[in-house]
Formats: sequence, structure tokens, C-alpha cells
Amino acid sequence: MYYIGVDLGGTGIKIGVVDEKGTIIEKDSCPTRVKDGYKEIVKDMSQVINSLKAKLNISDDEIHSIGIGSPGAIDDKNGVVIFSGNLEFDYVPLAEEMKKYFDKPVYVGNDANCAALGEYFALNDDSIEDFVAVTLGTGVGGGIIMNKKIFTGFNGMAGEIGHMGLVMNGEPCTCGKRGCWEAYASATAIIRETEKAAREYPDSYVAKLVEENGGKGSGKTAFIAQRAGDKIGDMVVKNYVQAVAEGIINIVNAIQPQVVVIGGGVSKEGEGLINPVREYVEEYSFGPSTVKKAELRLATLGNDAGIIGAAFLGK
Amino acid sequence: MYYIGVDLGGTGIKIGVVDEKGTIIEKDSCPTRVKDGYKEIVKDMSQVINSLKAKLNISDDEIHSIGIGSPGAIDDKNGVVIFSGNLEFDYVPLAEEMKKYFDKPVYVGNDANCAALGEYFALNDDSIEDFVAVTLGTGVGGGIIMNKKIFTGFNGMAGEIGHMGLVMNGEPCTCGKRGCWEAYASATAIIRETEKAAREYPDSYVAKLVEENGGKGSGKTAFIAQRAGDKIGDMVVKNYVQAVAEGIINIVNAIQPQVVVIGGGVSKEGEGLINPVREYVEEYSFGPSTVKKAELRLATLGNDAGIIGAAFLGK
Repeated sequence: MYYIGVDLGGTGIKIGVVDEKGTIIEKDSCPTRVKDGYKEIVKDMSQVINSLKAKLNISDDEIHSIGIGSPGAIDDKNGVVIFSGNLEFDYVPLAEEMKKYFDKPVYVGNDANCAALGEYFALNDDSIEDFVAVTLGTGVGGGIIMNKKIFTGFNGMAGEIGHMGLVMNGEPCTCGKRGCWEAYASATAIIRETEKAAREYPDSYVAKLVEENGGKGSGKTAFIAQRAGDKIGDMVVKNYVQAVAEGIINIVNAIQPQVVVIGGGVSKEGEGLINPVREYVEEYSFGPSTVKKAELRLATLGNDAGIIGAAFLGK
Repeated sequence: MYYIGVDLGGTGIKIGVVDEKGTIIEKDSCPTRVKDGYKEIVKDMSQVINSLKAKLNISDDEIHSIGIGSPGAIDDKNGVVIFSGNLEFDYVPLAEEMKKYFDKPVYVGNDANCAALGEYFALNDDSIEDFVAVTLGTGVGGGIIMNKKIFTGFNGMAGEIGHMGLVMNGEPCTCGKRGCWEAYASATAIIRETEKAAREYPDSYVAKLVEENGGKGSGKTAFIAQRAGDKIGDMVVKNYVQAVAEGIINIVNAIQPQVVVIGGGVSKEGEGLINPVREYVEEYSFGPSTVKKAELRLATLGNDAGIIGAAFLGK
């Protein structure tokens, strides 16, 4: 059997055919025609799915279900997007619309939650029941898996861990509050701090790298400077590591998942990021060191997590 | 049927006989002999239970189960206290020991989680599945109810919401980290800020109240000054309200429980506390105002929550 996974984004739609093991057999994409409304968007999805089916020579009988990961608050019982600012969706019956094209079960989940579900299945470890995935990208996203299922809360909006507060009255966040984790642990945040450090310490190697890049920092700049022995790069990375770790401690202290994975662009730093985060979490999470706590790992699926997780909504 | 609830604290043990409706029919207490070890502690519990049974003329047949709320990390499947600093417990088989005295099911839960379970049952609303109770006392405690059950995480330590961070590198917390919610939203914290304000603004009414009280503030001082129109009292309360609300936002954004109740000493301020907290949470929690979010309520059981929740561990 195959599972169709749809990763619906604000600018593009990625669709994959996923096998039982969670491997994407084939994928394709199309733009998201936000202005044309959800019916056209679902029509576009159906065309991509049909072309993937044709390409792979798959019949409807071989398709188990279709899963759609969408931004916003989701009513997963009814397959409705309650609200999505990016997509201009307001109580959109996505599952019902998709069923007009395919006589298959259709599931809808929040996109970040789907990515978390994908990473959860990628662990391939049945003993893990409670799990959190964190994505350090433009923002900080995440998803909570409880009892092996996406945890959505009563209103479909649980798992917005990027908007847990880290610094009361701190940096402004896109959500309207100040000091959210996202405002300190996102790629956007480390870029901001890198550029700030470059201005404050113009003789540093960080400043040189920023200057060479036309005055812009990237999520990598401070890490590169740190590895080259630059003290200012080291400072920026250490502050960033603390911010990432403090947010993970919040999750660990509240929920105590067995495993937390870190994904997103910044996580490509790999061991250089996760090792110091792990040390900080071990030292400062609540409770004695004799009690086993969440294991921190790097995410493994990259950008495919959303497709795979959406596909496995029906698994 | 009756349910026996044991609220095991670091200095005293409170035990109650609870009926089906969650009313304590009779209760009694004894000191906690920490230094004599857990076997003596359980023996003391058994004697209090027997005296309550005798007083009420209840037979063993009328007792459904015995529940014990204990500080620390709990293995609830086996009724073992994995660790408790206050009680000097290290893998203590509390349920097994209690069964030597009573041939009844014995359940063990974390004390803060039991208090949350008590408040949950007090809601008496079967439509509520996910719920969080927050206790603003000497520290900030809490418990998470998910799917109508205490949520403990895989290691028995979930729900330590008082040690979610609020201010990175902020006030030192008893847990060894800095800036925990507890360090800003506990009674201890508002007392600290009240006394600090009194020192900084010696002409304020807050300062006068602190002086009249021998140089000490209480959890009430700033609220009293605020009600009397004192600007400094108002400032202390507003900062405290923000701290309480920001922690609740963290819970709401991550878990989206249907109801959050606030208990503990400071919650006795009632509407003067909860109304501004509610407004702040509504304004700054993530997502559009069109999506229903957690309802904030005052806890109703006071100090009895622990006994009732422990009793209902077996319900």
C-alpha cells in the first residue's frame, strides 16, 4: 500500500507517494494559489496526485489514504482548517473537498505536527510513546506526539512551542508577544545576533565574515567563526545554544518526552549544536541526574518530514 | 464506597476519607518521621487510616482503594517513589509497603499531580479531558491532566511547570537554574518584589505596610496597597500578573488544555488576580481570537485538593 502525503505551504505544495516504510517513492510540487481559494488549491493537489499515480502506474486500490499537512489550527476529527493566516483559510473543509477527487480516507493535520509525526516514524522505535520535534528555521516550530499520536489540544492548536516565552519583555516576536523562544532560537534570531555582534565587534572574525557577505549574517556565520577560534563567534553560538537549550528544558520539565529531535536549517550544524545543547539541558533540567530524561537527537528527514508525516496521518 | 487519600508532605501527613462525590467525610494528620524511613512513615499512615475507619465505623469492604500523593518523581505503574529529596526517598515501594496493612489497591502519585487531579474532579464536567492546575505557593507547582488522567511522562516527572523558564539568566531558582516561572510567580517572588519596592520607594503605601509588618512583606501586601490606590503597589501587582500570565501562556501555547485553574496562597486574591491574568493571556496567547482557548478559573478545593486527588487516583 502507498500513502499520499501533501505538504501544503503558503507558497508551494509538495506532494509525495510514501511506502509502508516511510520512504518517498516519488514526489512533485505545484504553487499554492492562495488568492484563488481552497477549491482551486485542492484541485491542483488532485492533479499532482493523479500525475504521480500515472508516473508510478499506481491504481486507487493501492492507495491507503491521503494526508494533508496545512499551516494553522486544525480540526483533525473533521479534516477542517479552522484558521490559517498564510492561506487565508477560515473553516475550510479540506478533507471533504479532497474526497470529491478520491474515494479514500483523507486526513488533515497541522504542518509542523505532520513534520513531527514524520520524524517520530523515522525513529522506528515502538517503545517511544511521547516525543517532541523542534524545528529551528525562520521561526521555531514544533509538534508534540503523545501516546504515539499527534497531540493537538482541544482546539487543534497545541504544540506551538516556538511561542513559549523565554525572556519576559524581551525581543519582539511575530506573534505579537515579546520574548518568545522563536525570537531567540530561530535562524532569524541567530542571524540578528550575529549581525549585532559584527557591529559591536568590528575587529572580530564574525564581523569579517559578515562584511564579506555584503553586511549580512547567515545561520552558519557564528558557527564558522567559532570553529576558526573567534571569541565573538563563540559568544554568539553560546548564547544561541543557551536559548535553544532553555526552550528544550521547558518542554522536558513540563512534558518529559522520551525523545526530542531538533531539525530545521540551524540543526545542520549537527554535533556542534546538539552537544552543547545536550550538556546544558542535562545540567539544568529539573530533578536529580539519577532520573533518566529525554534523549536529544538530530532530526533525520530534513524537508521531507512534512510529506512523510502527512502521509502517515492515516497509518 | 469510600476512597482513602493520603497527602504525604515533608513535615506532615494529611489523610482523609473521601466519598464518591469527592467530599472529605473525615480527616486527620500526623507528623512525617522522615528520619525513621519509609516503613515507619507507612506504619504511621496505617494507624491514622485505622483510627479514621474506627471513628466512622467503616469496614474494609466499604473502602475502594488507597491513594498516596508524595513529593518527587513517581513510578505510578508500580507505586514506587523514584526519588524525593524532601523525604529522602530513593526507589521506595510505597504501594507495596501499604499493602502489608490493607488488602486493597494502593496507588501512588506525585503530590502536585494529585492536587491537580482533585481540582479536575471538582470541575465535575465530563466534557473536559485536558486540564492544568497551577499552584502559586511558596513555589509554583502544577499538574497536567490529559485524557482525564494525570500525565506523568515516561519518567514520572512531567508537570514541573514551575520550572519552565520565564526570564533567561533571571532570578536564581531553587532548582539550580535561573529565571524559572517559580522565581517570578510564587508567593516567595511577590514577597521579594514587594520588599524590594518598599526599599526603592520608601514614601509609598507599600513601604508603609511593609514597615508596619516589621520590615516584611506578604503575598497580600502589594494587592492591599493597589486597592488603596498606591501606584507602587499597583506596579508590583502588574508585574506579578504579567509573570503569572506569561507562564500560563506557555502552557496554553504548548498544550492547549480546556481549563487552567489557579490555586495556592496567592490565588486567594481571587478576581483581583485572575481577571488581569485572563486579559493578558487572551491578548498574548498564540493564534487568532476566533479560536477558543483555555478557560481560566480559580481553584476551589484549597488545601484539601491533595487528599481528594490522592483518594481518586483509584477512581
